[in-house]
Parts: sequence; structure tokens; C-alpha cells
Amino acid sequence: MAIDVSDFVSSISDSLISWRRHLHKFPELGWTEYETTYLIAKELDKLGYPLSLGKDALVSEERMGVPNHDVLRNAENKALQNGVPAEWMSKMKGGHTGVVARLDTGRPGKHIALRFDIDALPILENKWSSKDHFPTIHGFSSQWPNVMHACGHDGHAAIGLGLATFLSTYQEKLSGTFTLLFQPAEEGSRGAKSMVSKGWLDDVDVFLSGHIGIAPMQIGEVVASAHGFLATSKLDVLFNGKSAHAGVEPQEGRNALLAAASASIHLHAIPRHSGGETRINVGTLQAGSGRNVIPDHAAMSLETRGETSILNQYMEDEATKIIQHSAAIYGVDCDIQLVGKGIEASSEQGWKEFLDDATKSSKRVKKVTETLPLKASEDAAYMLNHVRDRGGKATYFIFGTPLAAGHHHPLFDYDEKVLDVALDVYISSILSLS
Amino acid sequence: MAIDVSDFVSSISDSLISWRRHLHKFPELGWTEYETTYLIAKELDKLGYPLSLGKDALVSEERMGVPNHDVLRNAENKALQNGVPAEWMSKMKGGHTGVVARLDTGRPGKHIALRFDIDALPILENKWSSKDHFPTIHGFSSQWPNVMHACGHDGHAAIGLGLATFLSTYQEKLSGTFTLLFQPAEEGSRGAKSMVSKGWLDDVDVFLSGHIGIAPMQIGEVVASAHGFLATSKLDVLFNGKSAHAGVEPQEGRNALLAAASASIHLHAIPRHSGGETRINVGTLQAGSGRNVIPDHAAMSLETRGETSILNQYMEDEATKIIQHSAAIYGVDCDIQLVGKGIEASSEQGWKEFLDDATKSSKRVKKVTETLPLKASEDAAYMLNHVRDRGGKATYFIFGTPLAAGHHHPLFDYDEKVLDVALDVYISSILSLS
Amino acid sequence: MAIDVSDFVSSISDSLISWRRHLHKFPELGWTEYETTYLIAKELDKLGYPLSLGKDALVSEERMGVPNHDVLRNAENKALQNGVPAEWMSKMKGGHTGVVARLDTGRPGKHIALRFDIDALPILENKWSSKDHFPTIHGFSSQWPNVMHACGHDGHAAIGLGLATFLSTYQEKLSGTFTLLFQPAEEGSRGAKSMVSKGWLDDVDVFLSGHIGIAPMQIGEVVASAHGFLATSKLDVLFNGKSAHAGVEPQEGRNALLAAASASIHLHAIPRHSGGETRINVGTLQAGSGRNVIPDHAAMSLETRGETSILNQYMEDEATKIIQHSAAIYGVDCDIQLVGKGIEASSEQGWKEFLDDATKSSKRVKKVTETLPLKASEDAAYMLNHVRDRGGKATYFIFGTPLAAGHHHPLFDYDEKVLDVALDVYISSILSLS
Amino acid sequence: MAIDVSDFVSSISDSLISWRRHLHKFPELGWTEYETTYLIAKELDKLGYPLSLGKDALVSEERMGVPNHDVLRNAENKALQNGVPAEWMSKMKGGHTGVVARLDTGRPGKHIALRFDIDALPILENKWSSKDHFPTIHGFSSQWPNVMHACGHDGHAAIGLGLATFLSTYQEKLSGTFTLLFQPAEEGSRGAKSMVSKGWLDDVDVFLSGHIGIAPMQIGEVVASAHGFLATSKLDVLFNGKSAHAGVEPQEGRNALLAAASASIHLHAIPRHSGGETRINVGTLQAGSGRNVIPDHAAMSLETRGETSILNQYMEDEATKIIQHSAAIYGVDCDIQLVGKGIEASSEQGWKEFLDDATKSSKRVKKVTETLPLKASEDAAYMLNHVRDRGGKATYFIFGTPLAAGHHHPLFDYDEKVLDVALDVYISSILSLS
Repeated sequence: MAIDVSDFVSSISDSLISWRRHLHKFPELGWTEYETTYLIAKELDKLGYPLSLGKDALVSEERMGVPNHDVLRNAENKALQNGVPAEWMSKMKGGHTGVVARLDTGRPGKHIALRFDIDALPILENKWSSKDHFPTIHGFSSQWPNVMHACGHDGHAAIGLGLATFLSTYQEKLSGTFTLLFQPAEEGSRGAKSMVSKGWLDDVDVFLSGHIGIAPMQIGEVVASAHGFLATSKLDVLFNGKSAHAGVEPQEGRNALLAAASASIHLHAIPRHSGGETRINVGTLQAGSGRNVIPDHAAMSLETRGETSILNQYMEDEATKIIQHSAAIYGVDCDIQLVGKGIEASSEQGWKEFLDDATKSSKRVKKVTETLPLKASEDAAYMLNHVRDRGGKATYFIFGTPLAAGHHHPLFDYDEKVLDVALDVYISSILSLS
Repeated sequence: MAIDVSDFVSSISDSLISWRRHLHKFPELGWTEYETTYLIAKELDKLGYPLSLGKDALVSEERMGVPNHDVLRNAENKALQNGVPAEWMSKMKGGHTGVVARLDTGRPGKHIALRFDIDALPILENKWSSKDHFPTIHGFSSQWPNVMHACGHDGHAAIGLGLATFLSTYQEKLSGTFTLLFQPAEEGSRGAKSMVSKGWLDDVDVFLSGHIGIAPMQIGEVVASAHGFLATSKLDVLFNGKSAHAGVEPQEGRNALLAAASASIHLHAIPRHSGGETRINVGTLQAGSGRNVIPDHAAMSLETRGETSILNQYMEDEATKIIQHSAAIYGVDCDIQLVGKGIEASSEQGWKEFLDDATKSSKRVKKVTETLPLKASEDAAYMLNHVRDRGGKATYFIFGTPLAAGHHHPLFDYDEKVLDVALDVYISSILSLS
Repeated sequence: MAIDVSDFVSSISDSLISWRRHLHKFPELGWTEYETTYLIAKELDKLGYPLSLGKDALVSEERMGVPNHDVLRNAENKALQNGVPAEWMSKMKGGHTGVVARLDTGRPGKHIALRFDIDALPILENKWSSKDHFPTIHGFSSQWPNVMHACGHDGHAAIGLGLATFLSTYQEKLSGTFTLLFQPAEEGSRGAKSMVSKGWLDDVDVFLSGHIGIAPMQIGEVVASAHGFLATSKLDVLFNGKSAHAGVEPQEGRNALLAAASASIHLHAIPRHSGGETRINVGTLQAGSGRNVIPDHAAMSLETRGETSILNQYMEDEATKIIQHSAAIYGVDCDIQLVGKGIEASSEQGWKEFLDDATKSSKRVKKVTETLPLKASEDAAYMLNHVRDRGGKATYFIFGTPLAAGHHHPLFDYDEKVLDVALDVYISSILSLS
Repeated sequence: MAIDVSDFVSSISDSLISWRRHLHKFPELGWTEYETTYLIAKELDKLGYPLSLGKDALVSEERMGVPNHDVLRNAENKALQNGVPAEWMSKMKGGHTGVVARLDTGRPGKHIALRFDIDALPILENKWSSKDHFPTIHGFSSQWPNVMHACGHDGHAAIGLGLATFLSTYQEKLSGTFTLLFQPAEEGSRGAKSMVSKGWLDDVDVFLSGHIGIAPMQIGEVVASAHGFLATSKLDVLFNGKSAHAGVEPQEGRNALLAAASASIHLHAIPRHSGGETRINVGTLQAGSGRNVIPDHAAMSLETRGETSILNQYMEDEATKIIQHSAAIYGVDCDIQLVGKGIEASSEQGWKEFLDDATKSSKRVKKVTETLPLKASEDAAYMLNHVRDRGGKATYFIFGTPLAAGHHHPLFDYDEKVLDVALDVYISSILSLS
């Protein structure tokens, strides 16, 4: 095996940074990653991959939390104006983003699948309060208000393109089949299930995915197999009451704001569960239309989590009951929509030994830790479980990097050297597996 | 006195409707009535009135609840694009709307002041759900989302222009002085005080104002002097907490959404007061930035009311205490701003007899009721009290009309014949007083 | 009519004080006034009145809020030990207290009914913190913990006995019929309805009742006819949940304490009603059995009130809805019992003129006021309405007296001279009516 | 070592049951175990032990959550009436219960201490709803309302007496020193600290304690060393407001009931902590004095717990803040008392191997499990930590038994055969250690 991983990574390092910064500058939310998907797909196309784009990459009905028609239409128009060709858009429109590339070497060998998530978050990047914010200094902070790559998926996508380049370059020296999934809508646990349902992972031998950051670690530190994926449910609630003049006839109103307020407090008072960790968060609430009008509507977004799917279901069931009766207290109707659902992932052993061995000659990988709890939800759980359930092996790496601020923070940023480390780990793993 | 009131009103009736419909189609919120003020002022200018526009009409520092710079700037740009001349805008910019016109007949006589409010409400006019919505049928429903003349101030302004036309037309037959105040920002009790402070009413003998609608009455029914103006305080609250990842470290957050929710519920539980009627309403609440982030901010708008200023102060004091400690429960900071304050108005007797006499030959006025409780706040209270305190007389009429839906309702509308009745009442009163 | 009212009142003044103090020292709660009823009935018996005692005085099934069997049994045993003869007790046991005495003069004339309430309150008389507490100084403060005549019914009963003495003494000089109702369980609006249902007032021409204290007035001031009786509902609620070890398996509990807490707060947030005054109070709450056990039960007593019966029903309906859904939020059952219900009383005019005339020669009555709002509930409303509905006349006096502390206060007390004034008013009224 | 453990246990089995049933029938709450202490001490006295009773057994000032004077006085009078001699009572009165017995064999050897807790719970034993309740069938259910041995401390005390008998019987064959602590007030984590402070454990080599029940296990199953003792704080809160007539002047009240209700709900909404398990429970709430009086007082008992002392402190700190500001919302004062505090216990390894070896010839011990999480607070943690901190060894056994209902349940009961197993384990351990 005469491939020099270190040299290859060095050769493509500038491209990784370039891709990452472009994506960071033009972030897109889940199911509207039209420009992002186009950028990735165009690169894969150049590398010669056969592509499954948008509607061909996933099962439309299995998508969760797709934005409404107006939001999609606006995003599509923006993408068309920004140069996404109409024929590409025709495959993506209506919230069908993401792309799958498959490379069959023609030689017998393992089927290895890798997944890279590509969506951004509804966060306003903080470009003004700190002189040290790296993306601002280097001119690639988000061009869009309230949309930001604050979780590192810009880097994940770049690493994926780096790996695609590697596979394409060295395909004659490789054997088996490789499937690269560029997944939309990871945030909110909304996209993975629809890709799994398409069958991409049905005969996969090994599934690899991972995340940069997460815990306080240095460049070069790698976790071989994260555990502790929290199961989660994402709920949107609309409370519909009745407005009335607050001074003239307050008794005629049906107060949706108070129904939502009461629900919020009671939701946070769901009893702790002795079976393990649980979480609840009412993340947003918008209610009412005018100061002197009894509020007739309220919109709330919330999420529950559990260390296991059973625990999460306990939380979701309690939440549903609480919301319904909080509404009823105020004579208000409510509509509860499940817009995302993530599951726990089973654990697998032996990855530390594997990775120690695979990266033993790597200069970039300095320390391999067996495992670390994610303490968060990760849409990849659907993929890990699907592969393991069918007898394959699967892991989820964590790539250490200092963070300027925590994930989902307006000042989030990471050391771009982690991109090289992550690419090194993926390539070394593939070579070791083949 | 050979003026035929009925004929004059008939002659101008079409103009009243035309003005009203134009204003209804292009509504503007308090302190951004740039186009509205321009339209009114241009008409007054044509009639030959000397004008005090914008900064000349009020004391800038006494304005309450002025929108922020961005909102004002956007409204100013919109007005400039829609044809408001730059030289007019220079007198209004920064939220200095409204205009005062004064006609001095040169003949000794009473100083009579009349006030007409001109602002619209932050309500989305319902143009789709009803086939019967008159403004939609006749093509003059609001062109702007979330702004609507849903309280009849479009009609008030039109009546004011009708009266200005009358005074101008018949000035040679009149004596004394007339001051017409076209007041901005009535909604939220934000504008009257700043006009009073300018001194317009300091030597007024009689002050007249009024409202169309309010109670279920027919065209032709008029209330001679409304009572029961509720004192009110308008408060804006910002809760500032601390965000954190809701799954990874919920204990690190300081939950501004829950602080606001708790405050909302406790505010509505302020004890009733045996001294008279009180009101509280949390009208709007916006909180949080993302589903999986502990909400670090919440913005709430609320109002208190009281049958008397003492009762309203009780409510405001309780509200302040509740908000502060609800924030403290969650370790959250709060900032409470008073953005509007309305006062009770004292009552005055004798107006039924006056109006019965003044309108005895009117065909339009069919029934005069002595009084009716407003059960709402009315910014004019500052003006009524100011005039009465200095020995003048003052009243607030109510002009009956069927209503398609209550005030502040997305389907609010009235019978335009009320415009004629109101104008008749004002003119008849003036002629009777002179 | 050669009766000297003033002389008679003076002659019996010491007895009034003596009765009052005895009753004050041995107070009894509603439906357990065994010793109180016995004391009154024994006096009436001595005066020669035919008596309707206990079960003969009311309709058993129409009583509201009767205490449970244990409470009644304990009270009965105490009364037996304190000297109430067993044959008297047999007519009263099971919560059948109160007594009706009727005097038929045999001469044609009006049928006049008078009602005196006799029950005490569950309040701990404050015998220690003030050196000035009159009942303590004179050795007649309550002998029982948590039971106190803190509303003046001890005085009402004494006045009733004074009046019975008068009628008995001067019966030969009187005409018509007199019915004296000594009513149990006025507190909580629980007893009047059951006496009305017995038919005592069916053919009454004039009904008189009244209260000492209420508003700040001097001795000698009398209100001719109070208005503003608030309609009221008294509710007892039991929440039944499920206990669990709070440390080991909190998720297994169904928390009745939190259900009751949530209900309490939401009850106080019922919107104010533009139709008039409303009230709500959760007066008591007992919940839970141990610190480390999820509370499986909670008992709550509450009341609603309204300026009219419609307003009170609005409050009761809202309260019921809120309680049910607050329970449901916590998966807890609830049982709501109506244990008392008071109604508004219609008003009647002309009583000031009547009383001015009736007391014109009285030295004790110094000032007659037409009316005053009670702003409280009064069980007599059932009686006032019943008489008025059948064409009779009815009024409810207020007898002025300085108060050491407000009604229902642990330091409540009044000037005993008010007893003489009240008796004077009743006698003068009767003589004037005859 | 010619002692036949099995024979000894069989010989004393009937006594264990007899002691247990007597204690079960006459349960006493923490710090009032006068009769319980007397029964135990009398037995120890008969066996010849020198005794440290009551004030000699603990440091008075280190006791937590001692009941008030009235409660103690009543319990003391009851105990005197039930035969506790006055000279014994003089050492115990004022809530100084419990007894320590020490046996010094005179032969060099280890100092082994054992602790048995003796207090009951404020629970009403369910003697009526089930025909199968063993204590009822056999006539030893609790004679006192609202007091019940629902956690098995009756058995613990019996086992302690069994062990005392063993040590006394075989003292000539044993070496070293034995200290038996019969500890009061374990419930609520109130008593252990005061015994530790007395110095009983300062030079102990091995400390043994344990609990029957806890997890679903069969007779014969034993856990060698429980872990997961939750740290805990026990708080009593008094809210002091101001009463007022709820109908006449509700605005004058300061509502302590609502303050407590609001605190209760907010306490249960303290954010979960990513550092580990936490708990909160408002166990009891009593508020208000009458239905129509604004409640001026409320008393609340609550507890917090945490997997570690740091986590528990987080909960206690949040709770304190919430209570203070919930009171302030209603203008109510609050007084927060810490009445109990339990700490986490560190873990120790090697006890499974020890116990497997010690009980290898036991017919009663059938299965030894290494550890099991207690998921509850245990006052013994103070003792375990004290001994380990000074270099000794310490463990806390769990003795398996089927349970009729969970701990702290009104139908709690266990299989009395567990008493034999537990005694066997203690004796076998001692023999193995010596």
C-alpha cells in the first residue's frame, strides 16, 4: 500500500479551508441547502462520481420538519439568483437537498459508507462584539442574518469533499465500494431517517461518521467511538385562542399566550426519571399581536431528550399531556406537530484498538481515546443503528479542537487544522479496513 | 346664522369617504404617520391654514413609546419613496408626526379646540376569510401587512379634514379662534401629552373630541359626553438571561423564556381591587432563538389599567414587583420601560342638554344619550383634563354606528354614514357655541 | 302606643351584654351550634315561645357544607358534656342547629320576620399580643382554639333575644304575627336556604335583618338598606394522585400538591369581567404526607364571588375548568364539591324615609344613611329575595360601631353600645310597621 | 472457631420476629423513639452491656430536625404512661433518643462498629383496604395513626438485638471490641451526624450497616456494598403574609398560599444537571386558615437530592433562590430552615470477595451481588465516610426480600425470613474479620 496519507492531506489542506470558508460565508438551514448541495455536487461531478441528487437521495415522505412552502420558495429563488442552474434545482425543489455519491472500484471488498452533514443553524453570527472572531478577521463570516454554521458542519462537508477527492484519486489502488452521504437537516434530527429509508446503508459493512469539537480536546486528539447519543423529539405547538379588547371585555378572550406560558413552566417541571437522564427545553415562544389585545395565538418550539428512547418517549408523552391541558385551562385549542425525532444509538466496542492501529504511523493523530459521552442528539444514530442491526460495524468519531465558544454559540469557531486530522483519520481507517 | 349644516355635510360627504378610504389603504403606526400627516397637511395647506408640522406641533421629549431608529428610518424611506417631499420630511423625521392648524377669525369669540387622532394598529387586516369585508370589496383594504386602521382613526382624520373645510369655507361668518389638532400615536396613549405640553390648549374655552363606534348603537345615535376613561400604563420588558445547550449543560442557562412565562401568569393573578375596575394584559411575548438553546432573551409588552389613576398605579406597582422577582427566580436580568401612560378623565355634566339643543334641527342626529362608559383608555384624557383644569369645558362624543367586528379586530369596519353624522355634530356644536 | 322603647332597651341592656359575652366565650362553628342553640332556645322557652328546634326549623337536605360525621360527633359529645340535655340534642344531632320562634298576637296585622345569625368562625382569637383586647380584659375571650366570634354574630344573637323579650313583654299591645329565625351556618352561605325551604317566610309581609360593623361608622349611625350583596360559590376540592418515593422513582408519582398549586395560581388569574366585580380566593390548602413522598393528595377550599349571580357563575365555571385541567396536567383525579352558595340580593327603595320616621324620637339613632355597599356575601340574600319575590318588603340594616380590627380578624371587637342601638332600631321599626 | 452460626440464628429467630412485631405495633417518629429506645436498652441491659443512653449517646447540638417542644412533651408523656421509667426518661427527654452499647472482649483485635436505625415514618398504615396485609392478619399493625414502620427499621432494630445477643453469648470466644449503635432519626438524615460527633467511630477498624429490601431480590440474596447514596438537604419553609377579607379588600392581603404554590411549581422546574442525578420534592404544604380569608401563612417541607454533594448543593442553592423570590412576588416574607442534611458516600471495593468467603458455609446466603445503587439518601453515609476517612473499612449491605409494597408505602411489608439472613451475614462477617 504505497499511498502516503500525510502527503495527500497536506496537498489538499488549502482546499479544505477554502471549501469550509465558502460554506461558512453562505450558510443554509436544513432542507434549504440548495446552494450548499449544488457546490458539493458540482465538485463530486468534477471528480467523476455518479450522483444521486435531492429527490434521488432520500425518501421524500420520511423527511421531518420540512419548512413551509413560503420559506422553501424564498430559498429556491435565492439559490436560482445565486447561480444554481434550473435543471439542478428541479431535482431539489420542495426541500429535497443533499446528495449521495457512490464509488464502486470494481474490485471485491468491503462496502464502506461515510456520512457528512451540511446544514447550518438559525443563529445570528456575532460579527461585531469581538475583535478576535476568526471568520470576521478573515472575511468569511455569515452573509445572512440569523443563519450560521455554528456547529461545524461547514467543516464536515469540506472533509467529505477531501475524502471524495482522495477516493477518486486513488481508486485504482482501492477495492470494494464507497458510499458518501452528504446529509441535509441534521439539526433537529430531521434528515437521516429519510436517507436510511432510501436503502443506501442496507448492505454496508462499515459505517463511519464523526464530529469536530464537542469536548475540550487538543488538535490531534481523537475519540474512537462516541456513546451517549440522546434520543430526542422535536415538537412545534400552535395555540389558538380568541382575541378581545383587553380593556373593554377581557372575559371574552381565550388567552393563548398564558396557555403557552403555563405549558412552558409545567413542561420544565416534568418529574426527573430514575431510569436515566432526561431533558426538556422550550426553545422559542412567540405570542400575541398587540399590547391591548388578549393574545389569540402562540407558537412554541420545544424538544425532549432521553438517555434512551424509552426515557425520551416518557418525556414526549408527559409533554403532550401537559400542553393539551395547559391549553384547556385557558379554553384554547392546541396543535402539536412532531417535526423531528432522534433515537439513541447502541454502543460498539473495539474501535480504540482499531484506530490506534490504523493511525499508528500518522503524525497528525496524537492520542486516541476509547469513548466519550456525546450528551446530545445526533441524527447519525439512525444510520449507526441501521448498519449494526444488519450485522455491519459502525462508529462515530470525535475530532478534538480548541473552540472559541461552545457549539451553537454566536461566537463558535474552531481551529481549521482539525480538518486535516479528521481527513487523515477517515483515510487511514479506510486503508486499514480495505 | 344662515349656514345650512346639512347641505354642507352632504356636499362634502364624498370627500370624507375618499379621504377615509385612502388612509385606510395606507395605514401607518404611531410616530410613523409620515404619509398620513403629509396628506392631511397638504389638504390643510390648500385650504390656507397656517400649519405647525411635526417638531413644531409637539414637545419632542414628552413623546412616549417612540419606535427605535431602524423602524423610523425604514418608515421615512418608505414615505420618501411614496412621494413625501424631503423638505416636509425634514420637519417630521425621527418620529415627529402630526400637525396642528389654527384659524383665527379675527373676531372676538371663544377659542375652540378639536382633536382628531390619525394612527393605525399593528393588526393584519383579514382580507381573505370573509367575502363580506367592505374594504376588500371596495378595494381599499390595507396594503401593508400587520398594519390596519382597526379603530376608526381613518374616519376621525377624514372628519377633521371635513371640519377644516367647513371652517375655511365659512370663516367670514364665524368668530373666535379654532385649533385643529391631528394627533399621532393615540394607540398606546403615547402622543397627547406631547401636544398638550406644547401649549396648544392653554387658553382654550371649549375642547371637543370623540370616537366612532365603541358601543352597539345605530347611525344617528350620539353620546354627549363619554365617561369611564381608564388610566393606563404601557410597559415594555426585556429579560436577559444566558443561553446554553439544552442537552449538554442545561444547568448553565438562565432561562429568560421561563422568567417571562412566570411573570405573565403572575401578572394576571394580581388581586382584584375593591376600589374599582382594574385590568392587566400581557399582549405580546417573543422569546428564545432556537429549539435546543436555553432561551437567553425574552421581550414582553404589557399594559395595566385602572378606573382611576390610583388603581392603575396599584397595578403598575404590583406588575413591576412581579416582573422583577419572576426574573430573579430564574437568575435573569430585566429591564422595564414605561412606553405609554394614560390618565383617567374627570367628568362634566350638561352636555346632553347642550347637544340636544345644538342638534335640534339636525336630520342626521336622531338620539342623544347623556353618557356611556368608555371602559378603555383614551389619550385625549390629557387634553380633557388640561382644559377643564384651567376652567374650560370639554367633552368626548361617541358617534354610533353598526360595526362589522369589534374595535381592534381583523374584520373591524363601520358604516361610512357615521362620518356625516360626526361632522354634523361638530359643526352644530361650534355654531351653537359661537 | 304607650311603649317607651328607650326605657325598655335600657332595662335589658345588661342582659344583651351578658348574652353576648357568654356566646363569645363559647363560640361554635356552623352546623355545630349545639350549645348556642340550646342557650337561645332555653331563653325563648322561658319567654313562653312555641319553638321549632333543629330538624323542625329547616329542611335537612337543603343544608350546604355540613361537616363530616366525626366533626359532628365530637361537637355533640362536647355539648352533652357541657350540659345540653339529651332530649334537646336528639332534635339537633347530625348538624341540625338553629331555632325558630313564632309569636301570633291573635290580632290581625302584618307578619313580620326577623333573622339573627349565630355561628362563629374558624379563627384563633388573639388573646396574647394586645393588652387592649376587650374580650381578654373582661375575661370573655374564646375558650376554644381556632373558633372565634370574629364577625359579631354573638351580638346578633343577643339582639335577637332582646327583641324576643320585648315582643313577649308587650305582646298584648301588639298585633299581627312575628317570626324570629335564629339561623345557623351563615358563614359560608350554608344555612339560610334550608330555613327558607321550610316555608317560614312564605307569607311574610316584612323581613328585617342586619349586621353590626361593616363600614367605619360611629355608634348611632344606621344604614337603612344595604345593597351590593355579592353572589358566591364555596367549593371544596380533593386532588387524588399517587405517591412514590421522591428519591427512588419520582416518575411513578402523580403529584397532587403540584396540581393544587397550579390550580391555585391559575384560579387567581381568571380574567377580570367587564360586567362588574368578581372575586376568587383559595383560602386553604393541605397537601402531602411526608417530605420524601410524592404527595398523593391535596385538599383545597375556595370561593368565588360576583356582583351578580351571573358574574359569580362565570367565576365558578372558569374555576371548575381550571381545577379539572390543572389536575389533568399532573395525571391527578379531582373531586369538586359545592358546599355553599350565596346569591345577589335585589335592591329596594324607600327604607331611609321609613327609618327616619320610625326612629325620629329615638335618642340612640343619630344618623340614617340610605344605603351602603356590603361588598361581601350574606346568606340573608335568600331570605330578602324570597320575601320580595312574593310581594313582601325586606331590608338589611347596618348598625354603626367602631371596630378594634376588621371583621374576621383575630383582634376583631366592637363597642357593645351598638347592641342597644340595633335593638332600638328593630323595635322602632316594628312599632312603626304595626 | 467452633461457633455454629446457623444454629444460633435458628435459636433466636422467634425472638427476632417478636421484637420486630412489637416495634412495628408501637412505632415512633425520629427523636421521639422513647419507648423504642427503652425496649432496646432494657434488652441490652439484661445482656449485661454497659449503655450510653440518650444524651450520652450523641452530641445534642448536632441533631437536626428536632420536633418542637409540644411534640416532644406529648411523646414523653405518652411514653411515661406506657411504662418508660422516669429515671430513664430523664436521660432522653427533649428528643435525646437512641442508645450505644459497647462490648470490649479484653482480647486484642479489631474494633468493629455496627449501626441499626430505629425510627418510623409519618405514614398511615393501610389496615383496611387489603385482606392480605400481613401485619393486620397477625395483629401487629401500627396502633398509632399516621405513624408506621414503612421502611423496615423495626427489622433493623430486631437484627441489632439479635446480634447483641450473639456477641454477649459468645464473647469469650471473640476478640477485639464491638460497638453497637442504635441510631434515632435516620429518616430525614437527622441523627447520624450527632452520633459521629460523639466520637464512637473515631478508632473503628470496620463499620457495618445495611438495609432490608430496597431492590427486587429474593430471600438469600445479599448485596455486598451498596453505592449511590444521594446527598440531600431537608428544608422547612414558613411563608408569612397578611390576611384580609377576600371579598371586601383582596388587595390588602399578602397571599402566602400563592407564594408557596408558585415556589412549589418553580422548584420542580429547576433545570436538570448534566453532572448527574438530582431530585426535588415539595412533600407537604399547609396554608391558609379560612375559605374567605386571604391566606397569611403557609408551611412547606421539601427536600433536594443529588448524586454528589455538589449536585445537591446546586439544588439547594437554586431552591433557596426560588423560594425567596416566589415569596417576594407576593410581598410575603419567608423563613427557610435546614432541618436535615445527608451526604454522598464514597465507594469501596473488595466486599463481594469478602462476603463470598465469609458466608461460603452459610445455607441462608444464596447469592452475593457486588453492588447496587441505593438511589436514595442514607444517614449512614456520615458514618461510612468518617470511618473510611480515618483509614478504616466500611460497607453497607442490602438484604434481599420480596416486598408487599415499596418502601414508604402504606402497605409496605417484607418476608420476616430476611431477619435471619441479615443476622447470619453480620455474624459471619464478624467471625471472618476477627
